[in-house]
Parts: sequence; C-alpha cells; structure tokens
Amino acid sequence: MGQSKRDFVSIDDLGNEEILALFGYADEFNEDIKAWSDLCPGTILATLFFEPSTRTRLSFESAMLRLGGGVISAADTKVMSAVKGESLADTARVVGGRYADIIVLRHQDEGSARVLANYADVPVINAGDGAHEHPTQTLCDLYTLWREKGELSGLEVVLAGDLKYSRTIHSFAYALARFGASIVCVPFPGMEIPDHVVERLQRDWNADVDRADVGDLAGITASKDAVYITPHKPHQQSLFTRISPQSVKKFDAIYMTRSQKERHEGANLDDLAYPRIGPEELRQASLKDTRVMHPLPRVDEISYAMDQDPRAIYFRQAALGVPIRMALVAFLLGRLKGWKLASPAPSGRPIYRSRSGVACRNAHCVTRREGRKYLVPEFWILSDVPALLRCVYCGVERRPELVGHTQSRKLHRSNAPEAARILPQRRVYFEGPAQAAAAGFGEDGSD
Amino acid sequence: MGQSKRDFVSIDDLGNEEILALFGYADEFNEDIKAWSDLCPGTILATLFFEPSTRTRLSFESAMLRLGGGVISAADTKVMSAVKGESLADTARVVGGRYADIIVLRHQDEGSARVLANYADVPVINAGDGAHEHPTQTLCDLYTLWREKGELSGLEVVLAGDLKYSRTIHSFAYALARFGASIVCVPFPGMEIPDHVVERLQRDWNADVDRADVGDLAGITASKDAVYITPHKPHQQSLFTRISPQSVKKFDAIYMTRSQKERHEGANLDDLAYPRIGPEELRQASLKDTRVMHPLPRVDEISYAMDQDPRAIYFRQAALGVPIRMALVAFLLGRLKGWKLASPAPSGRPIYRSRSGVACRNAHCVTRREGRKYLVPEFWILSDVPALLRCVYCGVERRPELVGHTQSRKLHRSNAPEAARILPQRRVYFEGPAQAAAAGFGEDGSD
Amino acid sequence: MGQSKRDFVSIDDLGNEEILALFGYADEFNEDIKAWSDLCPGTILATLFFEPSTRTRLSFESAMLRLGGGVISAADTKVMSAVKGESLADTARVVGGRYADIIVLRHQDEGSARVLANYADVPVINAGDGAHEHPTQTLCDLYTLWREKGELSGLEVVLAGDLKYSRTIHSFAYALARFGASIVCVPFPGMEIPDHVVERLQRDWNADVDRADVGDLAGITASKDAVYITPHKPHQQSLFTRISPQSVKKFDAIYMTRSQKERHEGANLDDLAYPRIGPEELRQASLKDTRVMHPLPRVDEISYAMDQDPRAIYFRQAALGVPIRMALVAFLLGRLKGWKLASPAPSGRPIYRSRSGVACRNAHCVTRREGRKYLVPEFWILSDVPALLRCVYCGVERRPELVGHTQSRKLHRSNAPEAARILPQRRVYFEGPAQAAAAGFGEDGSD
Repeated sequence: MGQSKRDFVSIDDLGNEEILALFGYADEFNEDIKAWSDLCPGTILATLFFEPSTRTRLSFESAMLRLGGGVISAADTKVMSAVKGESLADTARVVGGRYADIIVLRHQDEGSARVLANYADVPVINAGDGAHEHPTQTLCDLYTLWREKGELSGLEVVLAGDLKYSRTIHSFAYALARFGASIVCVPFPGMEIPDHVVERLQRDWNADVDRADVGDLAGITASKDAVYITPHKPHQQSLFTRISPQSVKKFDAIYMTRSQKERHEGANLDDLAYPRIGPEELRQASLKDTRVMHPLPRVDEISYAMDQDPRAIYFRQAALGVPIRMALVAFLLGRLKGWKLASPAPSGRPIYRSRSGVACRNAHCVTRREGRKYLVPEFWILSDVPALLRCVYCGVERRPELVGHTQSRKLHRSNAPEAARILPQRRVYFEGPAQAAAAGFGEDGSD
Repeated sequence: MGQSKRDFVSIDDLGNEEILALFGYADEFNEDIKAWSDLCPGTILATLFFEPSTRTRLSFESAMLRLGGGVISAADTKVMSAVKGESLADTARVVGGRYADIIVLRHQDEGSARVLANYADVPVINAGDGAHEHPTQTLCDLYTLWREKGELSGLEVVLAGDLKYSRTIHSFAYALARFGASIVCVPFPGMEIPDHVVERLQRDWNADVDRADVGDLAGITASKDAVYITPHKPHQQSLFTRISPQSVKKFDAIYMTRSQKERHEGANLDDLAYPRIGPEELRQASLKDTRVMHPLPRVDEISYAMDQDPRAIYFRQAALGVPIRMALVAFLLGRLKGWKLASPAPSGRPIYRSRSGVACRNAHCVTRREGRKYLVPEFWILSDVPALLRCVYCGVERRPELVGHTQSRKLHRSNAPEAARILPQRRVYFEGPAQAAAAGFGEDGSD
Repeated sequence: MGQSKRDFVSIDDLGNEEILALFGYADEFNEDIKAWSDLCPGTILATLFFEPSTRTRLSFESAMLRLGGGVISAADTKVMSAVKGESLADTARVVGGRYADIIVLRHQDEGSARVLANYADVPVINAGDGAHEHPTQTLCDLYTLWREKGELSGLEVVLAGDLKYSRTIHSFAYALARFGASIVCVPFPGMEIPDHVVERLQRDWNADVDRADVGDLAGITASKDAVYITPHKPHQQSLFTRISPQSVKKFDAIYMTRSQKERHEGANLDDLAYPRIGPEELRQASLKDTRVMHPLPRVDEISYAMDQDPRAIYFRQAALGVPIRMALVAFLLGRLKGWKLASPAPSGRPIYRSRSGVACRNAHCVTRREGRKYLVPEFWILSDVPALLRCVYCGVERRPELVGHTQSRKLHRSNAPEAARILPQRRVYFEGPAQAAAAGFGEDGSD
C-alpha cells in the first residue's frame, strides 16, 4: 500500500478543512470546465459498477476525462463475478495493480468499498455500497449548499420525504451536523428517520435533539398530502439541533427525496399521498429564499412547474457533481496544485478484531457475504460498559451480551463492572451464551 | 439555452449549403484520419443509447476520439430508466449540465431526440428515434454518393427492397429530392413505399411523381425473385421525379435494404423470395456504373460475391460515417476552422400548441409516451383549409375534423371556409365532436 | 490489406526473437507506466467482446490509454449480433474501416479471430476464441516467468490442476516447449492433459515425452486432496521433456489452474477434492524457490494465506498484463521506437482449400458456425501419407480416410502409396466414401 495513499470510502475519510479546500478547487474548475485537461494526463480511473447507476458513473467518468485522464469501465460486473466468482480482495489487487491509478466502486454489499480500499494499492472511491454510504453524493450536496449560502455552519435545513430508507438523507444529516448546521425532519408518515441515525447524530457530533412542534413549517405542508406534519399525530417527529423550533424564521434549504419503494418490503404505503413540492406549496414567508434540493432522479415529488422557480437548485446540484468529483479525484491522485496530500487522520477509536466472537448483525454486511471467506470481522469499540461496537465495514452497531477473557476464559455480562477490567486486547465479545460456549468460554462457571 | 446552440435532430436541421460544407470538411478529415486530435480537446461527447445500436454508437465515439475529445457512454440505459424512471427532460438537464458538451441519443420513442434537444443546454444529435429519423445515416449516405459522383443534383437513384418500414430509405428519399436527385422505387411486393412518404415528397420538395412502367430496370430484376417489377402487377409502384422513365439510360446508384422483419407484424411475407443482389444480377448496360449502397448490416440481400465488385460501396459507406460525423460534431461544437456556426434557420411554419385539443395520432410519439407527463403537443400547421397538422416531435401528420374558436367557443368543420377566418392563435383543433364537447366547445349549436 | 499488417491471433504469429524484444519494451514501459502517452496519440483500439471477460478487456483498454490512444468498446455484442446477424467478415470491414486502428476480439467460435484478421484492414488481436487460443494470456505468462527467472530455456515448470480443458495451460505448454523449458504435468484425476496436446508438443517442437514416476513432487501433494499423484493410480500421467524425473532437484514454477467446471459436461468430478495450494503444501526443499502462477480468477485452489508468500506471483502476473499488452499494441501499430515491423513469417506448410471435401470436425469451429456462409474450410497439410490435416482456423486436426484426384476422379485410401503421388493441388480429401460419392468421386471403381 502506498505511503500517503488516501481513500474516500466514507465522508468521515475527509477532514472538515479538506472538504472546504475541495470546495475551493471545485469552484475554480467550474469556472471553465474544459480548461483542466493538463492536470492528470497519463492516469487512469476505473469505474467498477456491480449495480447500475448510470448517472453516478457518468459523473465520475466526465470528471476524469475533464482532468485529462483516461477511463476504463466495467458496468456489467455482475456477469463477470457471477460466472467466475472473483473476490473483491482479488479484484482490488488486479485492477489496482497496473490497470488503474484510482478506482470507483459501486457494490451492493455494505462495507464492500472498505474491503476494496484495504486490498488495493491505489485510492478507492465509494460510489455507493448498499444502504451504507454514498459519500460523493453527500460531498456534492454539501458543496451545492455551500456555494448557494456561502457557509454551512448555522444553516437551517429541512429534510423531507422518505427519511427512513434514504442513505442519501442519513449521510447528509451526519455531514450537516458535523459542519454545525441545524436539521428539521419532516418525514412522510411511516418513513420517519430511524432511531439509530438520531443516536449517531447525538453521539458522534454532540447534536442536541428535541422532539418538537413543527407547526411553523405549515408553508411546505399546505397541500392536502402534507397532513403528516400536524403536531398531534403521535408518529410525527422533528429534530432540531442546537436551536429551539420557535427561533426558526426562515429555512435555508429543503432536501426532498423520492420514496425508496424498493426497500419498503411489505409495507402498504400510500404512494399517492407522498408529498409533492411545487411553487404553490412554497409560498410561505419562511420559505421565500429556501433552496430546493433533490438527489435526482425525481419521480413525482417535485413538480415540473418548480423547474422554472429560482429556488430550485436540483439541476445545479447534479451539474456540480462534476467539478467536485474533479477536485476529489485530483486530490486523491495528489495532483491538486498547491495542496500536499496528508496521510489519513487516525480515528482514535480502539479496534476489536473478532476472530471467534460476535459477527456483524447486518445481513448485508460484506463480512457476512462475499468477504466471509477471507475477512475477520472488525469493530470500533464505541463504549466499554455497556459494550457498544460499530462494524468497521458497514457501520452497523451492536451491543454484545457477553465478554470473555482470552486467558482465563471467564465470561461476564457486557454491562458488568468486571467487563471493564479486562484489557481491551484480552476481550472476546459474544452475542450470547451459546456462541461463547461453542468457543470454549465460560466453562468455569463464571457469570 | 446557448445563444447559437444548434442540434441535429432531423436532416432538415441543416441547410443545403451547410451539408455541402460538411462534406468538404469530411473529405479533409478523411485524408489523414489520425491528424485531428487538436480540434476538440477538453470536450466530452455522451452517447445515450436506450436501444442497442453498437455500430452507430462506435462510429460516433470514434469520431469524437479522433477529434481529441472524450466519450462517456450509457448503452444500457434501459436498466437505469426502468428502475428509477427519469424523464428525458431531466436526463437532458443532468447530462447536458456539466457531464457532456454534446449528446448523442438513440431512443425508441419517436420525437424523443427533439425533447432532449429542447431541454439540454448543449447540442443534441439524433442517432435514431424509433421509426422517425436517423439523420446521420442519411447524411452519411448522401456524403458517400456525393463523393462517388461529385454531385447530387440530377442523379438517378434506385431504392430497392423494403420501402415500407425502412426509416433509412424514407429519410434518404427526402434528402435526395431536396438536392434534386431522381428516385426510382423498386419495392419488394408488400413492402411498397407508403403514401404519406410520397405525399411529403410532393408537398415539401415539389417532386413530380409518376406511376410508371419500370421495365427498363429488368437488369436488376433478372433473377427469379424479382418478379415484383413486372408492370402489370397492380401492387407495383414506381416513382420518378422530373424525368420520364423512358429517358433513364443509366442508374447512378441502387440503395438496397434488408427486410425490416421485426416491423412486419403478422404479415406472412415470403422472405425466401426477398431479392438478392450480386454481380450476376447487375450485368445490364444501364447498371454498368451503378454504385451499390446498403446501410448495413446486410442479411442475405447482397451476396458476398458482390464484395469484390468495384461497384460495391457499402463498406466505404460505413467507413465514411466516421469523417462525416467528425465534421458534424466539430460543426455543432463550433470548432470547424473557418466556419462560423449560424443560428438555426426558422422553419417559417406557424406552430399550434394543443393544450386541450388534438393529440398526436402516432402511438409511438414521445408526446403520448414518457413525455405525456410534461409535454404539450405541438404541430406545424401545414395547411389551413382543410387543416393539416404535422407533429413537431415525430413528424406524423393528421387532419383534425373540427376547429373551435377559443373565445366564442364555436365549432367548424376544419374544411369549412369559416375555419380559415379564425386567427391562428385563436384556433383549437379537435379530432371529433366528443373531444370538442369534453373541452366545452360547440355548446351554441354551431356547425 | 496493408502491406506490412500483422495480427496476433495465435502465439505462433510472433517469432521467438520478436517475443523477447516485446519483453524488453514491456520492462521499459513498466518502469514508469504513466510516461508513455506520447506513443500512440490519434489511434483507436476497439474491443469487441462477444463473451464477457471484463479483466482481459480492461487490461487491453488500460494498455491503449497508457499509450495515449483512444478506446471504443462493444462488450454487449451478443445483443447486436443476435438482433441483426452481422457476419464477422462484415464486422471486420466496418470496424476496421475508419472506426479503429487495431481490433481486439473475444468470441465463442474457435477460429473467429483468424476470420476477423483475414477481413480487416487493421491488426487484429485474439483475446480468446472459444477453447482455441488466448495468446496474450500466454504472452503475459511467459513474460512474468522470464522476468522472475531471467530466461525461459532450461526452466522446470509444473502444470497442475485441470490440464484437460484449460486453454491457458495448453497454450502455455506449447510456448514453454518452444522456448526450451521442461514441463511436468500433475493433473487432478480425470483432468489429464489430452493426447492431442502431447502429440502436438512432440510433433511441432520435438519435445521428448516420458511417462514417469513423479514421486519426488510429493511436496506439492502433501495435502490429503493430492492423492492423485501416487504412482500406482493407473490414470495418473506425468510428462517430462528432455530430462529424467530423477534429475529434477528444484522446480522453477508451478502453474495452477481452476477447474473448468463449465466444460466438464456430465462428468461427475469431486470438486471438494480439487487441490488447494498454500504455504503448507509447498514446504519441500525442491519448492523453496518455486514461483506460484495462476491466470486468475482463482476459486479455492490457492489459499489466501499464500498471498503473503514471496513465491506467489499471480497478482504480479495480472499486473504485467498491462505493460506486455502495451508492447504488443505499439508493436502491431508500428510505433515501437527502434523496431521495424516485419511482414509475418510464412508458415511454410502447404494449405489445402476444401471446396467439396472434408470439413473441420470441430463443431465449435467458425467454419461450421457463422463462417459457413462465406468461408471455405482450409487445412495445413501436416503429413502426406497417412494424410493429416490441421484446420487453419481452429487448429483441430483430422485424418481424412480418402483422397481423390480432381481430374481422374479416382479415389485412394489416404494412407496408400498412390495417395502420395497425387500433386497436392490435385488432391481432394474426403472423410469417407459417402462424402466422396456425393462429390462424384470414385465412380470408376478405384479403391
């Protein structure tokens, strides 16, 4: 692995200062997008798309071509892998050998991009790994908002629509919190933001969260479809960070998402009632300067009439995907003039490698799918007692029931004070007694 | 939309002078095809192919690479659109935003390329929109013939084979008429040239049309398969423009097409009898210098023995697709040295926007398919009384039965003298009384 | 066809001296892989893949981009050909017309690349034609071994695993024999090297072949799966060239292959018993410096533990595919500095064109598949009496039963002395009496 190699698997892989620097370079690129073909000649970007996502792929390929580099592309990799079954680890070493100087991966397994990054000698960019992350979308969303408003800190941003299954929304929420923006959640009923996302907002970025009345958002909910925000509905939820709802006089942006129908397995949701935003729905004073964002493609949730409205910035958002990806690619290749690529900042969190203990509980995690042949599950230890682990690959957290000592082979409940006294490198976490017994722990009657 | 932006959606989007200028540039490019990579550096061409057409796609991509530009390609866009259902209008704005500087579209809906052109900020080239047009094929056919013969005006060109369903043949016929060439139609029985094509040849280009004996073409019909040209068969048809059949001493070209089997729904045609051209069939004096053209791929309608014959120019025709597309792309990007890109010439025809009246009668028209969500049907008014409308998108014509007045809401038969007295901007055309009544017209007993 | 045009359809299309020269250039390219974009600007490589093989395709595309050229790609050509049925001959002339300056073909029909090469005006590279050849894989294998060992002559190379169906193994064996290396075959039971391969090794490269005890290879067979090499199993087979097994003190390389499951039609092979190589299996002294090679992708036949072992060179092998393909492409385009492209060396063997006689006996040969419409079967006459023919396209050999005289129309057994007295240009070979009679031979009672 190269000494100063950097990857972009998660939005957390870039520091705030780095992100803001990329915005500056992107602005420069965007001024005359055809003028940068001298920046990366002789370099090759590979797009490996195990799932179709034409728009994302084209955006990356356009970015690399505009930097003067070349592109190789495998967008039908299902065919390849289905037939001959190569592992991600081997793909990383082959494609990252001499084929390409930077790799962009789209893959259905959560954590797959981290695997590719760990095994490839060249930088890896995550273009979507299942329901986990799609960090360049987040980067682009942040950049667009930053360009429009000149800053991110202190902004008031509404997240609307399907807040339950939209990976884009979750990542955007984390990033906004990280840059000190406030978030108001206005979910479509049944698509509320999940508790684990709220918990992470609180834990990782110290966001204050209040359940609050969002009556002053009536302007965006004037249509009959928008009954979901009336305050007395018990399933409603709103999330404010560091401000009280009463103080919100105007909203800087509304981020609208389509219904992730394909993920609402079995749920009988009334799609006809899904909210639809247009100039009519945005006439309230607090929404006068509100930018309307959408990751595209839209279905019906933003009307065509909105397209002519100066507040609509979703097409600009798509267009800015090219210069910001140019900045990212040039950054990872170490070709940004005036910028020295630093080594990645350490996360600082202890890591637990689970050779015989708990596995990730996420069935879509790469450690339980194709990576199971060669990967050891790894977790960040977020909390000692009670134990809380976060999968290094897919980010899903779990609370193991038991902790064992590798030498005494004694077992303790993971929330017992004795558990904290085991040195981290001596711990083995187990999901329960059966797993512990199978591994030969707990024989001497402990716990 | 850019001030001087030009598209190439229809062969009519270029003037005769422009077409002849492109031929000159293509000749220059063709002399040393590898010498032009300085013409379009830093620019990107996107190929969006919703239907497979590998040959056409590769021809465009080769042209752009030879001009020094880059290519991004989505040839499996069925996948994309099927899953997430983005509209052509949105695709136009996203891909034409920062991704690409020129877009090539292949799409099954007739009129789809016009939609893309209307919504994209960058030039759009139509690489085939259903059965409507495939204008770069026509441009290439014209160019090849022009190179071989030094001119187009006055040429005698035979169109043979499937004249009913071949889009290529129809477009070529229009273009030949426009440049003053004569056409002789020798259809395979059951695949005669449609009346609407003949009418358009007469109306748009003042072509003289005679039904005539084509006995003197016996040379190309000597095989037993060619019974179709005997003059006494009532379904036979031949079309001469501005000359009498007796005066034809030699033919400049035969344009042969394969049977468009996939479009002859239900018809029980005898494919075994489909004509087959080879040196044997072309021994007559009038065919001594006749160039044999074919859009490729061929099936069996031209024998392999023909390939060695100096009259065969179908492979040359395919090869010339690259330099002529280079000329077109450089032209639309404004990069042809010594040539200033002019604004498109106005068609001069009044346009009728049909908010509440007739829709296009073509079920494959984009206004009745994915465009129905956001497009208002538009028609050129070709004739006032009786009313004749041509769909701006797919080119299909219709004669609406009734005309209403937007203010008096009175109705008239579209061939009545009163109809002509309504100002064009006051007219609403209807397919019949039911549609008119539904729109609230005709209540006061008019007509 | 260009005067000095060269193709790379078979490893035999390059002389030994040329191959060694390519190795030198590849070394130079590999030193700074990003520094060669001035070598082939303005040129275009087309990848036509009728079968998926993403890794091979990306390797070629990367090579061309690193040389500064452009790439056009059709990897879904099944679609194209299935719909409109263009022949390889026509594809060659269209794509080799103006579209591309060099073509890389992957196709399921054996001999297809030779057809493309015969009809295209530009160089053609075979990237795999059915079970026939995949010569750039062989070139890359040779190159990797040569780099590791400094030479090829005199090396001791073990071929292990599926020696029956692996095209890669057969081609590598021929190439090793040609360069004077020794081969030891250690097949998985039921996957022994076929007799025709052994015969060809003897006939074409004068290799000495002994069936011998391979007991001293026990080191690589120490696992319980490796029972297959015990000498008393009757189906075991080992092949030594020019050395006695007793003299082998150390092995230079083991080339391992995966089981070509998809080709073992009906065979009930125990995949669980398929050998698996790891550091544990390679502890014997004779294997201390043995390089472990694999064409990738692997399934389970090489353990992940092996990846850290310095003897493992399979990832290096994949990486070197790029510089060696750069050398090959630049060579065929005539752009290798200091190297003049010579005309292809004549094979020296007489050719028999079989208009009315034997056809190729290989049902997968292109002459019996899509080429049957326009190709005349051709054979090299390897031996006169008894007659032995090798198909020029797919390389499969056959022994025709009868030989006729084109003028006397007399027939002879192909092993009769009279057969040798017929001038080669007067001979017609027949598979048997029925075919001969159908062609009008043998009426006068001969034979």
